[in-house]
Amino acid sequence: MDFVSKSTEGPVVTLTLNRGKVNAINEALAEELRKSLEDILSDSGIKSVILKGQGSFFSFGLDIPEFLNYSKQDFNRFVGKFADLYTYIFTYPKPVIAALNGHTVAGGFMLATACDYRVMVADKARMSLNEITFGSSLFPGSAEMLRYLVGDRMAEIIALTGDMYSAEQAKEIGLVDLVSSEESLTQDCMTVAVGFVSRFGPAYQSIKNLLRSDTAAIMRDKDKRYRAEMIDIWYSEDTWARLKMIKIRN
Amino acid sequence: MDFVSKSTEGPVVTLTLNRGKVNAINEALAEELRKSLEDILSDSGIKSVILKGQGSFFSFGLDIPEFLNYSKQDFNRFVGKFADLYTYIFTYPKPVIAALNGHTVAGGFMLATACDYRVMVADKARMSLNEITFGSSLFPGSAEMLRYLVGDRMAEIIALTGDMYSAEQAKEIGLVDLVSSEESLTQDCMTVAVGFVSRFGPAYQSIKNLLRSDTAAIMRDKDKRYRAEMIDIWYSEDTWARLKMIKIRN
Amino acid sequence: MDFVSKSTEGPVVTLTLNRGKVNAINEALAEELRKSLEDILSDSGIKSVILKGQGSFFSFGLDIPEFLNYSKQDFNRFVGKFADLYTYIFTYPKPVIAALNGHTVAGGFMLATACDYRVMVADKARMSLNEITFGSSLFPGSAEMLRYLVGDRMAEIIALTGDMYSAEQAKEIGLVDLVSSEESLTQDCMTVAVGFVSRFGPAYQSIKNLLRSDTAAIMRDKDKRYRAEMIDIWYSEDTWARLKMIKIRN
Repeated sequence: MDFVSKSTEGPVVTLTLNRGKVNAINEALAEELRKSLEDILSDSGIKSVILKGQGSFFSFGLDIPEFLNYSKQDFNRFVGKFADLYTYIFTYPKPVIAALNGHTVAGGFMLATACDYRVMVADKARMSLNEITFGSSLFPGSAEMLRYLVGDRMAEIIALTGDMYSAEQAKEIGLVDLVSSEESLTQDCMTVAVGFVSRFGPAYQSIKNLLRSDTAAIMRDKDKRYRAEMIDIWYSEDTWARLKMIKIRN
Repeated sequence: MDFVSKSTEGPVVTLTLNRGKVNAINEALAEELRKSLEDILSDSGIKSVILKGQGSFFSFGLDIPEFLNYSKQDFNRFVGKFADLYTYIFTYPKPVIAALNGHTVAGGFMLATACDYRVMVADKARMSLNEITFGSSLFPGSAEMLRYLVGDRMAEIIALTGDMYSAEQAKEIGLVDLVSSEESLTQDCMTVAVGFVSRFGPAYQSIKNLLRSDTAAIMRDKDKRYRAEMIDIWYSEDTWARLKMIKIRN
Repeated sequence: MDFVSKSTEGPVVTLTLNRGKVNAINEALAEELRKSLEDILSDSGIKSVILKGQGSFFSFGLDIPEFLNYSKQDFNRFVGKFADLYTYIFTYPKPVIAALNGHTVAGGFMLATACDYRVMVADKARMSLNEITFGSSLFPGSAEMLRYLVGDRMAEIIALTGDMYSAEQAKEIGLVDLVSSEESLTQDCMTVAVGFVSRFGPAYQSIKNLLRSDTAAIMRDKDKRYRAEMIDIWYSEDTWARLKMIKIRN
């Protein structure tokens, strides 16, 4: 694994995104994260997962400069793969806690909203589903996860403004569950994870499935039906010009 | 146009309901509003719409005394037309901001909840979906817009009590987005509209459609399936007697 | 009636659960409550129902020790009967107010969330849907009522933690509508009931149906589709061992 590192402490495993300064998501990172989660699923000793970013970002989202080199066909394949990934996390049978150690934007925001619980550091970190600010539509399923988390209207406000939210603001509108600090994040996430471990079992899996399976079905359906529209907008002249101006620090 | 006036300032158009003291909605007003919005849709220079009322009301709702002269068949036609209108606004490809300059009741409430954003003046103005207080059921689709805006349970409280909400209360429960004053309303709405203009484009339309199309489909379905029930209750002896007591100031 | 007593005051009837110290729900109590509600439905003089518990509990939930004597087939029959009961209350044509006079847990929580309105005493009483704490999944329909009441994400938090909520906390997250006290509960519920009486009629029934029928349809569907899974978990070795440790004070 080049871009996802793993460390285990008792029944809790921590996966750390590790790619450049901002943990920009490319196809390899998405594949590694999927593979890591599949491995953990078959490890009966693991009962809770923490997902965090190395450095000062959780993830700033897709590595747009890299994707601008993709053909439309290749980008279409990636979009399907990334949608599969967040839906996989959204319905993952073991609890996943997002440790939002820094900015959590676009694709990073999608990974975070797929988890069971979000702990975010106060101060500089911001959450944003900011696609509209560079003229992109949304990954269709990401809109459904957002509705699930904060309700229809708040999802609309977040998605149609692309606003940035501090940890306190994110907590107030339901995007995160707990505000922490740089110093306490690891410990706070471990405490949350241990709580999940204590309740984990067939009942947990059954209830999570009862509550999330309808949304997951809509996600799968919309990620198919609206993908072409989202990709057409991505490749439209105006949006493409704005995407080319985006720099990623690696 | 007799009952809807129009003024344009750059990419923002303001439509003003203009009928009597309370902007009571009759069939002609509904048709004019629809026609105005259709015209604006095909005007590529317009990127945001503000909808307000003249005088001290946004709209007090349907012109009930006028509709009591309608045959059941004619009223049925109007109900379908008004349901089409609010669904048209709910899914309108350009952003519509409701400038709630005064009381916003029943049919006026429905127009307001169909918009993308609501700014309401503080002090005397009230919002209310008060059909139950005169023994009428709801326009079926209006119940769905309300759920979209404030969630299932709050929608139920609003609809089953018919309570009146001040601007501050309406903001707290999610009915409005911004509280303004008589003096600042025009400027505040223009600021909001300019923000929408800056984000307007194919991504805006795609995201709005992603988020609202499911509810719109349910609205269309329920407005068909439940219309006869709503109209039967409207024409029932008890409700009819209460409707006849309603006066509209013209 | 052994376990449900009834008293009438004008158009308001009060049904009181009356079984042991904690109003533990067994099959007879569920049947009596259903029968009482059916009788009230056909009594045109009654326009509002208050449902409360005698003593210091609303209801602590199912009488688990009694159900452990049931065969799997008999328990399956009861689960279907109880799911029918809460769905019947959720869609009951007359308003039902839950007077939460004490702890309101598991099956008691389900009855409460099925009602139109909840008044809860402050201080010692707690609300909890705590199945996960003894390794049981949920009655599938109860998850849907909870989503209706508090939204998807809050429902998930409540159901996946099994946390206990005081009246104030329950009010804040939308589980209850009004916080009262031991001294004022009866009067407060009567005031709420009289308000419902004043609005009761065909419009009330039509609006309640408009708003609740979709959720009720999902409840009926899921209570069928997921019942076997819930019962298999109930009879699994680990959960059974935990159920055997539960004592009910009678």
